[in-house]
Amino acid sequence: MDRLRVFSGSSHPALAQGIAEALGIPLSPLESRRFSNDNLYVRLCENVRGTDVFVVQTFSPPVQDHIFELLMLLDAARSASAERVTAVIPYYSYARSDKKDEPRISITGRLVADLLETAGANRVLTLTLHSPQVHGFFHMPTDHLSAEVVLADALRERDVSDAVVVTPDIGNAKRAAHLARRLNLPVAAGNKRRLSDDRVIIDGIVGEVHMDTAIITDDEIATGSSVWELLNLLQREGVRRCLVTCTHGVFTRGAVERVSSHPLVEEIIVTDTVPVPAGQHTDKLNVVSVASLLAEAIRRIHLDESVSALFT
Amino acid sequence: MDRLRVFSGSSHPALAQGIAEALGIPLSPLESRRFSNDNLYVRLCENVRGTDVFVVQTFSPPVQDHIFELLMLLDAARSASAERVTAVIPYYSYARSDKKDEPRISITGRLVADLLETAGANRVLTLTLHSPQVHGFFHMPTDHLSAEVVLADALRERDVSDAVVVTPDIGNAKRAAHLARRLNLPVAAGNKRRLSDDRVIIDGIVGEVHMDTAIITDDEIATGSSVWELLNLLQREGVRRCLVTCTHGVFTRGAVERVSSHPLVEEIIVTDTVPVPAGQHTDKLNVVSVASLLAEAIRRIHLDESVSALFT
Amino acid sequence: MDRLRVFSGSSHPALAQGIAEALGIPLSPLESRRFSNDNLYVRLCENVRGTDVFVVQTFSPPVQDHIFELLMLLDAARSASAERVTAVIPYYSYARSDKKDEPRISITGRLVADLLETAGANRVLTLTLHSPQVHGFFHMPTDHLSAEVVLADALRERDVSDAVVVTPDIGNAKRAAHLARRLNLPVAAGNKRRLSDDRVIIDGIVGEVHMDTAIITDDEIATGSSVWELLNLLQREGVRRCLVTCTHGVFTRGAVERVSSHPLVEEIIVTDTVPVPAGQHTDKLNVVSVASLLAEAIRRIHLDESVSALFT
Amino acid sequence: MDRLRVFSGSSHPALAQGIAEALGIPLSPLESRRFSNDNLYVRLCENVRGTDVFVVQTFSPPVQDHIFELLMLLDAARSASAERVTAVIPYYSYARSDKKDEPRISITGRLVADLLETAGANRVLTLTLHSPQVHGFFHMPTDHLSAEVVLADALRERDVSDAVVVTPDIGNAKRAAHLARRLNLPVAAGNKRRLSDDRVIIDGIVGEVHMDTAIITDDEIATGSSVWELLNLLQREGVRRCLVTCTHGVFTRGAVERVSSHPLVEEIIVTDTVPVPAGQHTDKLNVVSVASLLAEAIRRIHLDESVSALFT
Amino acid sequence: MDRLRVFSGSSHPALAQGIAEALGIPLSPLESRRFSNDNLYVRLCENVRGTDVFVVQTFSPPVQDHIFELLMLLDAARSASAERVTAVIPYYSYARSDKKDEPRISITGRLVADLLETAGANRVLTLTLHSPQVHGFFHMPTDHLSAEVVLADALRERDVSDAVVVTPDIGNAKRAAHLARRLNLPVAAGNKRRLSDDRVIIDGIVGEVHMDTAIITDDEIATGSSVWELLNLLQREGVRRCLVTCTHGVFTRGAVERVSSHPLVEEIIVTDTVPVPAGQHTDKLNVVSVASLLAEAIRRIHLDESVSALFT
Amino acid sequence: MDRLRVFSGSSHPALAQGIAEALGIPLSPLESRRFSNDNLYVRLCENVRGTDVFVVQTFSPPVQDHIFELLMLLDAARSASAERVTAVIPYYSYARSDKKDEPRISITGRLVADLLETAGANRVLTLTLHSPQVHGFFHMPTDHLSAEVVLADALRERDVSDAVVVTPDIGNAKRAAHLARRLNLPVAAGNKRRLSDDRVIIDGIVGEVHMDTAIITDDEIATGSSVWELLNLLQREGVRRCLVTCTHGVFTRGAVERVSSHPLVEEIIVTDTVPVPAGQHTDKLNVVSVASLLAEAIRRIHLDESVSALFT
Repeated sequence: MDRLRVFSGSSHPALAQGIAEALGIPLSPLESRRFSNDNLYVRLCENVRGTDVFVVQTFSPPVQDHIFELLMLLDAARSASAERVTAVIPYYSYARSDKKDEPRISITGRLVADLLETAGANRVLTLTLHSPQVHGFFHMPTDHLSAEVVLADALRERDVSDAVVVTPDIGNAKRAAHLARRLNLPVAAGNKRRLSDDRVIIDGIVGEVHMDTAIITDDEIATGSSVWELLNLLQREGVRRCLVTCTHGVFTRGAVERVSSHPLVEEIIVTDTVPVPAGQHTDKLNVVSVASLLAEAIRRIHLDESVSALFT
Repeated sequence: MDRLRVFSGSSHPALAQGIAEALGIPLSPLESRRFSNDNLYVRLCENVRGTDVFVVQTFSPPVQDHIFELLMLLDAARSASAERVTAVIPYYSYARSDKKDEPRISITGRLVADLLETAGANRVLTLTLHSPQVHGFFHMPTDHLSAEVVLADALRERDVSDAVVVTPDIGNAKRAAHLARRLNLPVAAGNKRRLSDDRVIIDGIVGEVHMDTAIITDDEIATGSSVWELLNLLQREGVRRCLVTCTHGVFTRGAVERVSSHPLVEEIIVTDTVPVPAGQHTDKLNVVSVASLLAEAIRRIHLDESVSALFT
Repeated sequence: MDRLRVFSGSSHPALAQGIAEALGIPLSPLESRRFSNDNLYVRLCENVRGTDVFVVQTFSPPVQDHIFELLMLLDAARSASAERVTAVIPYYSYARSDKKDEPRISITGRLVADLLETAGANRVLTLTLHSPQVHGFFHMPTDHLSAEVVLADALRERDVSDAVVVTPDIGNAKRAAHLARRLNLPVAAGNKRRLSDDRVIIDGIVGEVHMDTAIITDDEIATGSSVWELLNLLQREGVRRCLVTCTHGVFTRGAVERVSSHPLVEEIIVTDTVPVPAGQHTDKLNVVSVASLLAEAIRRIHLDESVSALFT
Repeated sequence: MDRLRVFSGSSHPALAQGIAEALGIPLSPLESRRFSNDNLYVRLCENVRGTDVFVVQTFSPPVQDHIFELLMLLDAARSASAERVTAVIPYYSYARSDKKDEPRISITGRLVADLLETAGANRVLTLTLHSPQVHGFFHMPTDHLSAEVVLADALRERDVSDAVVVTPDIGNAKRAAHLARRLNLPVAAGNKRRLSDDRVIIDGIVGEVHMDTAIITDDEIATGSSVWELLNLLQREGVRRCLVTCTHGVFTRGAVERVSSHPLVEEIIVTDTVPVPAGQHTDKLNVVSVASLLAEAIRRIHLDESVSALFT
Repeated sequence: MDRLRVFSGSSHPALAQGIAEALGIPLSPLESRRFSNDNLYVRLCENVRGTDVFVVQTFSPPVQDHIFELLMLLDAARSASAERVTAVIPYYSYARSDKKDEPRISITGRLVADLLETAGANRVLTLTLHSPQVHGFFHMPTDHLSAEVVLADALRERDVSDAVVVTPDIGNAKRAAHLARRLNLPVAAGNKRRLSDDRVIIDGIVGEVHMDTAIITDDEIATGSSVWELLNLLQREGVRRCLVTCTHGVFTRGAVERVSSHPLVEEIIVTDTVPVPAGQHTDKLNVVSVASLLAEAIRRIHLDESVSALFT
Repeated sequence: MDRLRVFSGSSHPALAQGIAEALGIPLSPLESRRFSNDNLYVRLCENVRGTDVFVVQTFSPPVQDHIFELLMLLDAARSASAERVTAVIPYYSYARSDKKDEPRISITGRLVADLLETAGANRVLTLTLHSPQVHGFFHMPTDHLSAEVVLADALRERDVSDAVVVTPDIGNAKRAAHLARRLNLPVAAGNKRRLSDDRVIIDGIVGEVHMDTAIITDDEIATGSSVWELLNLLQREGVRRCLVTCTHGVFTRGAVERVSSHPLVEEIIVTDTVPVPAGQHTDKLNVVSVASLLAEAIRRIHLDESVSALFT
């Protein structure tokens, strides 16, 4: 492990620190700042020749700055003769841009994968991509972890015996069904249509939801408007208690507070792939960490051990 | 249009002929045969310098021969100085291999996209990919058509006023919901689990199916075992009449006959992206052609007209 | 010219508008917005198949958002089958990151050139790069214009008969000497050392500055601290009047006001490669436009006319 | 050697087994099957991170299936993070497609080399390419072994003191001369013209063949029609006994039986680069194995020892 | 044809001039010189934006200077926005370096093909490559002409009724057989072994040479030592008169004079793919030009007409 | 260090030998010669599989032969399965071709960087590039050493207490200022204009030169005409003694003798990045070696130690 180096971009120092601690090594020092013309500047402050470099950077806001800083760090590591450079991206935000549902747009999930390769990434380690196909956007070896185990463990500690797993969007039904099967619960899905980025309509629910408890699950919650719509629908259907879970808690525009305020919501359980925005914590919010999971994957990648064995 | 050339691989001459007729031009001649050591041989029998070449090849069985022949045709066209070479692939069979749901497999949908580029394709024109994300596997400009309009038109000619749209696999629910919305019908989905390539279990149906009629829809039917499972479930739920539709009617191992034999099945409606295997026709099978759709797309690509306008 | 399309990114709509007007064509419409998770979204709202697309985007703050939006626009244009895509970058901010003067940094001027190519740019059109060698960072055909003529024309309208051209940094002396020769004036240069991004020391001036008037010239002014240092030095040397000129007026942290406040400064002359930050205008600031220059270059590129002829 | 992994494609398990035994290691397990839509599926059933993977696949019929399966295996190994992936191709059938002797064909020997690289091969190990120039089609490091030693050893055990080495095709004369020189025998060559894939004419023989015995040699025998033609010619010239040898015994359409039936033929000696088709064995057929040769080359490649030293 | 530009490198201005005259256009001007540090300098002295550029450069000595000058001209043309750049290489000297007959050498015929692509060539036009497989070393579209017709026409004007076509090297026998068939003559070949670059042994002749006249043919004659060896052998066999022909008359170290001095030699017929070295002309040397052939190929390439039709 | 291999091209065997001696290893054997058609031939005469190969080649005249030989050596090493191949280029002559100061030229400094990558270089090690930006032309990891320390050490041994550092070209002023600062001396620069390759005018000197002694410094001296011009100017300004220093002593056309003959010149101090041309030595010429510096860099690169630490 003496050839292993972990650097942290500016996006989520706490998670990077957690990963380093779980690995039992210090974070490697780097310098990152901004010139007066808004150009970024980065420097790795440690010799990396012949080492196995992991750069941890999540795509939280400001997303473009964080992506660009990552590209510069990868470029710096490669040209400083690192033996291998892995981009560790707990939340790959542009995975949502994964298809061409309108003419003349960019499939940016694919574009960013190409940019990472151009900048010098030899591998990627990421977690719960919006759709599993996004894995195929990466040409280099990529390990795609799932936070499902972490969330399922957290849910099992709660009382979810008489619950249904519901996802706001039927397009996400397969993944919800997978979680439901793991918890031995039934599944349902909202028939969601997106009017604009922050306005959605849920036409109805496909599947039975006549339970006392619903576990609302999604890969990512941003403004929380889909969840809010679904909560109202579930309330009308007679549901009395909701656990809201997601992997990526982006939580913009006061989303934590908003979702917490709904009478059905008992708890919000998210992972720390994205830092909770400052001043957004409420009593109902519970963050479980993926630091150990990522650290274990890094350890196995570094030592050439099986990563898939992590899931069995 | 005098610089437009359409060549047909060995996989589906009838469809290629239909496309050429819709375009009002003859198919360009080529020679394709097999050496005694099983190597393939192809030759374009017409000067293609500076022309806009479209090679029509669907990935029907024998799939690997057809893919390889396509790669050779693309290579021949490029090195013969065609100005632009477009692979027209009505049925891109490897789109099903779009994610890494097991360790150490190949995401072959992405691999084939890369092979096409290596062989000389400048563009791809394809139809109803298994998942829309597969579009992002292609680095070159790609037009991804949908046969939904063609199938919806056919369904509207039938009596589907009291019907529900059902897809065997909840992972396909988003696309089924889209069709349902177009027909103004409700939607439901089977909670399918795949035991092996030809053995599936459907645990139950998510959504209401207490109608008289069900429209079963999927992107592709091969052995028909998923459809068969679903038919039995629907029968138990009281459905009395089924229209089975899909874009890609691969129909292996007597699938047409098998599905036709189910008492609920009134009609099977498929497109001709794949030739119906010899001797598989039954009275219930109805094939609607995508030749005009593909021809119109080729015409627009060749003349730099909007292809997306085709869908609005 | 009916196959020419000019799109404007978000960075400098006024300049793009000026270019379009000089070309006598309307800007092509596009849609650009931000998702709630801070992801960007762009869409070209006009068919671009077979057209010659120019995307105008300057690298003004927020630099990373503007670069990323440009990458997305290039990707969208390429995958929408534009015949050729040119990135028009009036101010290529990362040209300053052009060498490895410290270990383990990124030569980001080169990195961005590679990213542009990955995203789909076929050509670049830019103006007054920090050093002329940066031209060689681009692998694709690149037209590198100079604003020197525009600035020299403006200076000739002032009284500069008894002036010396001075640049704060001896590393820029070649370019200053070039301008001086064009104006038939002597040249001098500050022996500048950079302590940090916004703190510089000028050890002394190499060359004679015992004139009444000094024309201070640099490729870019950001905080203005180098200029301020030089102004003080020139004042001590007996200079009584200064014209401050530069191509790229980035002007951060109240730089316009600060420089304007120096007693020696009579006028600040800059081009509009970067929009003057809101609220920064002073009476002494004079902006001359490069819109016609860029428009003429675009016209010649589109019509395959010589661009170098623009300079003779 | 504990980081060495040898996988076998479907084409020639016996040879792969022989190689593994010569190396003293077991074959690594893999799963390979065919979906109902004729898509192939492969999975490596052992962790390969950081290992030196060799995939053995010969291009015997069905050639296209075997090539495609190899491409998938290479892709799977690369994306599973193998340190290095070598394609071991004992019989590279498309080496025969090595030039453009007609317009608008594909030089498929080159195309397949590019496809292998795209799919993830880092190296190639192959044996007796149709022409030595094909080596140059590969951009990656390639070891090109010759079976000449193996065949010459076999011939020396026979009585070949009064023999002439004859090749059906003068284009192959250089290689035949090489074998003749090694055996200290004279050489001659047929002046062959190919009418079609399986019809050839030999206009005459260039060189003296008035010996008792002829050793007919070629790199590959498929239908055996060239050999048959040559046998008849030699018979007319008074030759009384023939040993037929080749490296790649493809033997289609009953070729073994046919050649064996010729009165002049005493023995057919081939290597096992291609499995003898089922039901084709005759008493006259003698197969010498290249398994040890390939195994020794793999051992040397793995241990960074000289492979060229194998030939001296 | 107004978008066609032909530039001439320094290697063979007379041939380039002949090509331009046959095309009826002037050579485009360029400047080429050498800096005092031996660096080369080239400049295209005419706007080439959007044009179809052909750069004529043969690989005559000094070979490396000529190759490098060509690479610079290709780079200059590409970066000056030529629409298409074709390298016209009448004599591709490194085609001789086409295989790996010793360990740890470079297959430089392939390397140069890659360098040409890197420098910006979009196409190659060449003539009589040492082996036809070298065509496959080029990834870009390549037209490979043969001077056989030109030479055969010249031979038919002589008395060759009772002649045999002989090539010094059996490895070249296929091509000699092709010429012989065209002239309706028998063929023979020397069994040549190369001791060093300029020392060869011919062990004997394969085939009948008991004729009055021999036509010695090879693709290239450099020192003429192989030809000299063969002439002596033929003299011993009773041949009384020889016509020596080759495509590429490199003729180093007084080769023309030497070969001319042999009593059997009546005439030496070569093409002008390489300029005859100064002071090497003898009465027996006859140069036939390929300028018209190359010009016609350029015309067809430029106008998208079939080039293969040139040969039928 | 047992996996380290150093090969020497033909350009500067003495320097390569010095490097090998400083490393304590022998040079690896290679064979390099020229065919009669002027093609080059190279062969590495030692197994290099899995080794860390460094090829030393400086770009002294004949430059093109030396570059091409280097490309062949890189290609040979890569295809012979070296683990890593580093081009060691003490004098990268084409760094002078680093910008586009005229239309339609080649930025050959960038072109050669691309050619090196195409030929198989994984890294570059070079010394005092004409401009530091040229570093960015290389896509692969590149170590750019400076000979400044070596030259400064030599100067400190002379009496330079009352000296001014002067460079002929103001474009080089930054680097001269750097050397001056290291020696604690003032700096000045000639305002040079280049009329042609070997004719320059120096319009005047920017900065004070009223000292007894001048240290003339430049990165490279070829014909010495710039230095001669500057010497005359300095003489007129009253300077009485000059030390002439440069990194790359190309010295063409009797330059050593010419510069030595100037009355002001006391000594010429250069490094051995380029061999002093035969017969050019004078008493005033002093060559200090960079062999140890390059050897130490190679050692550190091989052992993954910091190279930047060499400079602090």
